[in-house]
Amino acid sequence: MSRFALHPRLVEDCHCLDRFELSLVLLHRNALLPWFILVPAVEPRLTELHELDGACRRILDDELDVLARFLKSQMGATRVNIAAIGNIVPQLHLHVVGRRVDDPCWPGVVWGRLPPGPAWPSQRLAEIRNALRAGGGTCGKRN
Amino acid sequence: MSRFALHPRLVEDCHCLDRFELSLVLLHRNALLPWFILVPAVEPRLTELHELDGACRRILDDELDVLARFLKSQMGATRVNIAAIGNIVPQLHLHVVGRRVDDPCWPGVVWGRLPPGPAWPSQRLAEIRNALRAGGGTCGKRN
Repeated sequence: MSRFALHPRLVEDCHCLDRFELSLVLLHRNALLPWFILVPAVEPRLTELHELDGACRRILDDELDVLARFLKSQMGATRVNIAAIGNIVPQLHLHVVGRRVDDPCWPGVVWGRLPPGPAWPSQRLAEIRNALRAGGGTCGKRN
Repeated sequence: MSRFALHPRLVEDCHCLDRFELSLVLLHRNALLPWFILVPAVEPRLTELHELDGACRRILDDELDVLARFLKSQMGATRVNIAAIGNIVPQLHLHVVGRRVDDPCWPGVVWGRLPPGPAWPSQRLAEIRNALRAGGGTCGKRN
């Protein structure tokens, strides 16, 4: 397998919070809303969801669900937007965005539309990281 | 189970092409680019991906893959954008959009940004429907 490395644009835009079984867990630096990005640590030639094998896809589904539940239970989201886009950053990555009717993009999408915003306070970042590590690995398993 | 019915906005915006094992297969009426929408025929209370049970999720993954491969093999797409958004239409639905560097939204997303465009010619609609029925049910199974 070619060496996995995070795309420079993702490094620039995001905090790296954790590593789940398959994916790195990133958080967009713009704190206007909670915007996670999962980056499966797979071969760079795999750039689309349908190119993952079944085992990886099921793990990724579980990891998406962990973040979706986390956004709703601990970050005030009332809706979760999930997307695989990759028009600018071809490396396979999944957006998991917590949305509310009072967020600055509602009801539009966030991609290309989120205005500049504040950074996450370091204390809040640590809380999110700790909460994900405490519950993230176990709360999202589906039947 | 409550009666499944397609949201009026989806009826207005889309052609209904087919029914896969789990989902209705819609095609956005704007023919500027190929934009499929999968609507799982599940209880209306299920509005987010993480609320589906594991069996449904795996079928949905297969159905997403069928459309992604179809977009690349038969509709000229070089990239596939997949999303569950639902900020305006809460009914669970998945966008599967074929993208190219020469499409009118590239590299931005299509949601809320696709300019008005022509309708699909009826002959082309019939070709797409027939091609999906001929290959859609069998070409997308993952290992």
